[in-house]
Amino acid sequence: MAGLEAAPAFFSDLIDTLTERGRSLLGQKGGREIVAKDALPTLGEMLLSRRGEASGVAIAQTLIASYAAAEPSERLAFLQALADRFGPDRRRIEHAIEAVRKDQGTEALENLHAAAEPRRQELIRRLNLAPGGTSALVRMREELLEYLPKHPELKSVDADFTHLFSSWFNRGFLVLRPIDWTTPANILEKIIRYEAVHAIQNWDDLRNRLQPEDRRCYGFFHPQLVDEPLIFVEVALTREIPGAIGPLLDLSRTPIAATEATTAVFYSISNTQKGLGGVSFGNFLIKQVVENLKRELPSLKTFVTLSPVPGFARWLERERKSEESSCLDAAAKEALGILDEPGWSDDPEKVESVRAILLSAAACYFLKAKDSKGRPVDPVARFHLGNGARLERLNFPGDVSAKGLKQSHGLMVNYLYALDEIERNHEAFAEKGVVAASPLVRKALRADLSSADLVPTP
Amino acid sequence: MAGLEAAPAFFSDLIDTLTERGRSLLGQKGGREIVAKDALPTLGEMLLSRRGEASGVAIAQTLIASYAAAEPSERLAFLQALADRFGPDRRRIEHAIEAVRKDQGTEALENLHAAAEPRRQELIRRLNLAPGGTSALVRMREELLEYLPKHPELKSVDADFTHLFSSWFNRGFLVLRPIDWTTPANILEKIIRYEAVHAIQNWDDLRNRLQPEDRRCYGFFHPQLVDEPLIFVEVALTREIPGAIGPLLDLSRTPIAATEATTAVFYSISNTQKGLGGVSFGNFLIKQVVENLKRELPSLKTFVTLSPVPGFARWLERERKSEESSCLDAAAKEALGILDEPGWSDDPEKVESVRAILLSAAACYFLKAKDSKGRPVDPVARFHLGNGARLERLNFPGDVSAKGLKQSHGLMVNYLYALDEIERNHEAFAEKGVVAASPLVRKALRADLSSADLVPTP
Amino acid sequence: MAGLEAAPAFFSDLIDTLTERGRSLLGQKGGREIVAKDALPTLGEMLLSRRGEASGVAIAQTLIASYAAAEPSERLAFLQALADRFGPDRRRIEHAIEAVRKDQGTEALENLHAAAEPRRQELIRRLNLAPGGTSALVRMREELLEYLPKHPELKSVDADFTHLFSSWFNRGFLVLRPIDWTTPANILEKIIRYEAVHAIQNWDDLRNRLQPEDRRCYGFFHPQLVDEPLIFVEVALTREIPGAIGPLLDLSRTPIAATEATTAVFYSISNTQKGLGGVSFGNFLIKQVVENLKRELPSLKTFVTLSPVPGFARWLERERKSEESSCLDAAAKEALGILDEPGWSDDPEKVESVRAILLSAAACYFLKAKDSKGRPVDPVARFHLGNGARLERLNFPGDVSAKGLKQSHGLMVNYLYALDEIERNHEAFAEKGVVAASPLVRKALRADLSSADLVPTP
Amino acid sequence: MAGLEAAPAFFSDLIDTLTERGRSLLGQKGGREIVAKDALPTLGEMLLSRRGEASGVAIAQTLIASYAAAEPSERLAFLQALADRFGPDRRRIEHAIEAVRKDQGTEALENLHAAAEPRRQELIRRLNLAPGGTSALVRMREELLEYLPKHPELKSVDADFTHLFSSWFNRGFLVLRPIDWTTPANILEKIIRYEAVHAIQNWDDLRNRLQPEDRRCYGFFHPQLVDEPLIFVEVALTREIPGAIGPLLDLSRTPIAATEATTAVFYSISNTQKGLGGVSFGNFLIKQVVENLKRELPSLKTFVTLSPVPGFARWLERERKSEESSCLDAAAKEALGILDEPGWSDDPEKVESVRAILLSAAACYFLKAKDSKGRPVDPVARFHLGNGARLERLNFPGDVSAKGLKQSHGLMVNYLYALDEIERNHEAFAEKGVVAASPLVRKALRADLSSADLVPTP
Repeated sequence: MAGLEAAPAFFSDLIDTLTERGRSLLGQKGGREIVAKDALPTLGEMLLSRRGEASGVAIAQTLIASYAAAEPSERLAFLQALADRFGPDRRRIEHAIEAVRKDQGTEALENLHAAAEPRRQELIRRLNLAPGGTSALVRMREELLEYLPKHPELKSVDADFTHLFSSWFNRGFLVLRPIDWTTPANILEKIIRYEAVHAIQNWDDLRNRLQPEDRRCYGFFHPQLVDEPLIFVEVALTREIPGAIGPLLDLSRTPIAATEATTAVFYSISNTQKGLGGVSFGNFLIKQVVENLKRELPSLKTFVTLSPVPGFARWLERERKSEESSCLDAAAKEALGILDEPGWSDDPEKVESVRAILLSAAACYFLKAKDSKGRPVDPVARFHLGNGARLERLNFPGDVSAKGLKQSHGLMVNYLYALDEIERNHEAFAEKGVVAASPLVRKALRADLSSADLVPTP
Repeated sequence: MAGLEAAPAFFSDLIDTLTERGRSLLGQKGGREIVAKDALPTLGEMLLSRRGEASGVAIAQTLIASYAAAEPSERLAFLQALADRFGPDRRRIEHAIEAVRKDQGTEALENLHAAAEPRRQELIRRLNLAPGGTSALVRMREELLEYLPKHPELKSVDADFTHLFSSWFNRGFLVLRPIDWTTPANILEKIIRYEAVHAIQNWDDLRNRLQPEDRRCYGFFHPQLVDEPLIFVEVALTREIPGAIGPLLDLSRTPIAATEATTAVFYSISNTQKGLGGVSFGNFLIKQVVENLKRELPSLKTFVTLSPVPGFARWLERERKSEESSCLDAAAKEALGILDEPGWSDDPEKVESVRAILLSAAACYFLKAKDSKGRPVDPVARFHLGNGARLERLNFPGDVSAKGLKQSHGLMVNYLYALDEIERNHEAFAEKGVVAASPLVRKALRADLSSADLVPTP
Repeated sequence: MAGLEAAPAFFSDLIDTLTERGRSLLGQKGGREIVAKDALPTLGEMLLSRRGEASGVAIAQTLIASYAAAEPSERLAFLQALADRFGPDRRRIEHAIEAVRKDQGTEALENLHAAAEPRRQELIRRLNLAPGGTSALVRMREELLEYLPKHPELKSVDADFTHLFSSWFNRGFLVLRPIDWTTPANILEKIIRYEAVHAIQNWDDLRNRLQPEDRRCYGFFHPQLVDEPLIFVEVALTREIPGAIGPLLDLSRTPIAATEATTAVFYSISNTQKGLGGVSFGNFLIKQVVENLKRELPSLKTFVTLSPVPGFARWLERERKSEESSCLDAAAKEALGILDEPGWSDDPEKVESVRAILLSAAACYFLKAKDSKGRPVDPVARFHLGNGARLERLNFPGDVSAKGLKQSHGLMVNYLYALDEIERNHEAFAEKGVVAASPLVRKALRADLSSADLVPTP
Repeated sequence: MAGLEAAPAFFSDLIDTLTERGRSLLGQKGGREIVAKDALPTLGEMLLSRRGEASGVAIAQTLIASYAAAEPSERLAFLQALADRFGPDRRRIEHAIEAVRKDQGTEALENLHAAAEPRRQELIRRLNLAPGGTSALVRMREELLEYLPKHPELKSVDADFTHLFSSWFNRGFLVLRPIDWTTPANILEKIIRYEAVHAIQNWDDLRNRLQPEDRRCYGFFHPQLVDEPLIFVEVALTREIPGAIGPLLDLSRTPIAATEATTAVFYSISNTQKGLGGVSFGNFLIKQVVENLKRELPSLKTFVTLSPVPGFARWLERERKSEESSCLDAAAKEALGILDEPGWSDDPEKVESVRAILLSAAACYFLKAKDSKGRPVDPVARFHLGNGARLERLNFPGDVSAKGLKQSHGLMVNYLYALDEIERNHEAFAEKGVVAASPLVRKALRADLSSADLVPTP
């Protein structure tokens, strides 16, 4: 442990004062000067070297506080150290491999597994023991994800974070809670901040989504991050499946009685913690919310989303340029030229003239187009189809906001969660890639396309 | 996946009805007939084979319910299957080893780690997703621990349970809560049931330990096991360090005002979940309780235990028989003969006559005697010394109950938690095996022993 | 204000130290010496004389603490002072009467009302402002009720307590809460203590009434007495209307699923605060519980009591001795002689031989016998009939415990709460004294009695 | 009971359907047609005529719902009916008076008191039994207070409301709760709406008053109005007594650590329920908050307000015009002419030139000027002095907002709550009208005024 030997005076002091300083650091800013420049990895080694838990928590606190107080360059250096200095112990792996070669017994295999575990996994586990540790680790990974594109060497660190977070944030440890106008303001302001689909303008807009009796909102919370909804879904209770977002969010609309609603519309689902990216809880959320709503309001029969189609415009642009498009023929390409005219969406005639062709293209987008892994191109579609939902209806125009026009030429869709179909749809999609879609959507597909898959988009 | 092929009809049906049946099973008894004899391992394979989470939860529910409804022999068979059929995939390990031999890159190492992970780890993680999964897994391991002595093949399964439980029940996820006379009765009855040190006779005895203002009790709770304290500690607030348990538990004693107390006495610490054996949270509990008490009652200066010495009588018996005892000389051995006389503890003269020699032997027991791993022989001593406490005082007689006489001839001891010494004591004990002890205890050691360690007891 | 002048030195001091002492007194015992012998009424005068609220609370605290610390004789003297020194101001009444005689205006009437208000009402209101004041006043009245039989001069004080308590403990301020096995132990021990109908033997007996899924318990709580249920009702969920209490309380019985129950049986209703005697909340409790249960368990169709008949044996004894009994003829009187034989209830033959005549007498007791105010003789009957319930069934033998035999020769009855009849029954009973009874009960009445009321029992 | 006889058909129907309709009415709008034009007073008679409580609640619900649905003219008519038809029963009073004249006994006096009680008191008590009754009554009185100036005949009704509300909303039934950024949004929006002293601009302004660690807010809540703070106080924690409001509310200021604060500044106190006007709980609030803060932050030594002086500008105008002003001589009057110049407060020289004279006038305003009842002219002064606070400092300019300039030429003051003086100050103020003021304030008074009181302002 070179680090420790290099700075003996520093550490002999540290060991005495760690608890106190560690604790005081946490509450402070500017505790930066306490730890030497290369101290973060050294603290990591120290934390791993302790046999007991007693001083461990103090060291973990110090490391977390020091990381928080460190310059960006030091932080990156620490993450890189996690990648190269806290991987598995290669010599130990060699011995373990030899033992396995000699003896195929259980113990040898266990040793191999232990030897191959990157040392940073245990380090992250020990950091999690500090007060506030979980939250600090989620923020640390958020930072890591920002570095990742330019620092591919951090990929293995990210994999370990994902592995541990998946265990700690598993469904069994999450708590579903309604979010409404009686929810504490410090949580509500996060709803405003994190809403990713249809931005919340201000507190009046927020109240309009939470307080009326035909509106609901639910979030998953984790005991260690009490004030942070990890993911939340906004729900409108209606009398029919809606095709456009505007009327749902209209501040001046008249609410209906909750007991008169037949349909629950999931019109926005937002993850809040970038640091938990790749840990999925969305499908649990929707299913749990469906169950809660059914219990509370037996008159609800239909559970459906009103969803954006974020990948459609980009895909359509490619298709329009491609000479080999199997979704668009020449006539279609020409007709779609209207979409290039500024203000087309304000002109009902233009909208009508393009509707049929655009819907047909959309059906092709959902049912035929695949990405390089053979999955639907649209990420929102992948999410809901993967949950076992069915593509129920294409709505045009559904969202004529600037964002809606840009990402999908105003197209919105409904995914239907039919409880007695979910398992089967999910199985078929997960195992064979089958896209569940209503007859209506299938019909929108032009006849000559309905029998053959398309070439994957690169 | 042989299991699945072997029972195609059963499973094609199952896949359709799983959700419903799985759910209904959970609430019922006697759902036994639903799953075929060898179904548990097959369900395990099925659970691992699903790519998505949608049907996964339903299968997990079914497996858990089926396990609960199964005969003991089937359960054991399932645990054995976890050991032999759900270990790591040996062929995959072989490939991974070859890849590592060729290429020492990060990815190859990651693959090796993944390949060497026993498949049951992922299986246990997926079972944890079912409602009530955590609790079911804790009970499953409790059973496993009962089988373990006669079924050493389950050792590797136990190791994986311990690994995962350590992650899920880490300190960061535990919540400290006071337990008092306003605590719900369903939790209090567990305090009665689980108290392991000084049995609680009935609800009056319980109230006597919780309600007086000079009594406290705290427990750690986990969000997934809300009604179950995982560990709890009982505390008496006193004006001095007590030497005997009797007066503390006396139903007719007069409480003192909490603000007059100078000393907090931890007189009982009990783990409650056998299924969490080996996952330690005791030292966190004591430190957290010390902090809480200091904040609530600034007049408290001394934090100390009143502890049993469960290994003393057995050790002393061996020493008395041993010809090579370095703790007892012939005179001592003879004097200790009094302990064999029935009723000696009721005769003050006999008690006095044996006191000095017994205390000297006790000092030797704590300071010199080591087990085969070089650690103190006494398990309670190992716990508190490992936490950084100091052996403060030997009390004789401290516990003249039948249990106290049997396990330690009535000896009790105090371990002192001095906050500014804890880290140092812990380090010295963990790294070098140094036993922290007060001068008084050291003095009790006979002069000729204080300089040399004893031969380890076998 | 003679009291104040009589002790000037005492009070000039007091005024300075009141707050502090008042507060410290509250936490202590033995603060008795602080207030002079006749100080309680003087403190009362003082409290009334303050214009502002600032020192008022301190004086109120002192008075309450002093009362708590006073000897019984001083307490009685204080209550008597409330009666004679804190009545209305007679001279002021005289003036107000004259003003009313002169001028029938609103203001004069208001003045008369204010003048006629006993001064103790304002005193009690001000005492209620002290921390813990409400609870202290409830205890004070409990004491007053004990003195009342021998001290009729306290009647007017009692009337004022009742008046104010009715306002403070009105239904609008009460909170209904389920009481179950997760309820805090300090509340549960009060359930054990206060259960007035079928004594609860111990914590096991209590659990047996709270924990099984076919058992419920609800209580009314007041925000000022948080740990005290004011009244509570114990409920059994069954498949039919039960006729005997024994099987309901049997520790070894097998619970049924709550969802299978069709009938909710209120088998015990207990008031807990003697000091709130005369303030009724029982009928609100039952109706609220009926509503809650209907919402939770739609399969419940029948809401019924299983009630004791506490006045029956005494009444029957009188009838048997009376030569003018219109309920019992000579033959009946002779047949009932069996009830004088020790152990008759253990002999099925004897029980059978007396059944018809006893039930007929019981019907007469409920339907015909009246007390001096023209109301049913039985207090439990008055309560349930007053709530709008209907006498549904007579059960013999229903309670063969010593208490049951003594008060009603083992008779129990069911009162039915039929929601659509309650208002009508209540109106008819309250306005015209009509006793709602099922045809079955009417039939039990001998033909010659069913048309004429009985002479009131003295 | 003329009303009942006048509408027999209506009521015989009503009695059957009351419960149901009453309940359904409550949840609806537009239930207006159910009750005949003059039905409200008739329902009142009906409610009073019921002997039992069973149908009472249903009638109370109907009356409340009907009142809510009625036209303003009908509501006023109902309030007027309360005044003239639900006063005391005059004939009964006559009898009671005669009985008192004959017999001075307790019972006769009690009867007189009962007879003189306006019948509407019992009516209001019974209305309070309905679900939501308390809240409905508070709104009803709010309306009454609006009518009062033009309808003096309602004065007696108002007196009864005040009497009953004082009993129901007495200090003993109020709960103090901190209000902070974790408080539910539906409560926080009421803080924004009700803040009466320094208007809250928006949610950011609100957060700035609640979230920083040197800010606190507390409110009193009543169990029957759970989402409504009845009164709340905003507190700033500072290092010294502030003289101006601007810096306290500055959105860009830097908070200090709460533990560094020595001074708690109550800078805004707002009542929220107009319907509870005249029921005082402000002084309890401040004292309770002082106690809570002292406990939480022992470093706090000074508890002080920063208060507006709402009556100063109006009073000064009168003094400047008056030829008999004993506060202002000719020179002072001339100097104060600057206050008539637009924009004077932006010119530091002008501010300085007027400071001494204005402060002297202010001292006179607080210490000498009295209203027609001999009390200080300023309502805020009356409140704090009545609580036992001391006028500590005059600040000029303290509030240069438009509102501040208009009501007090920018003057603000501090009232000091010195716990060991409060009782004495309060007594001296309440009993003798003594205004507690610091030497500094006394010094600001011109020498020739300090010995003689002023003539009361009309």
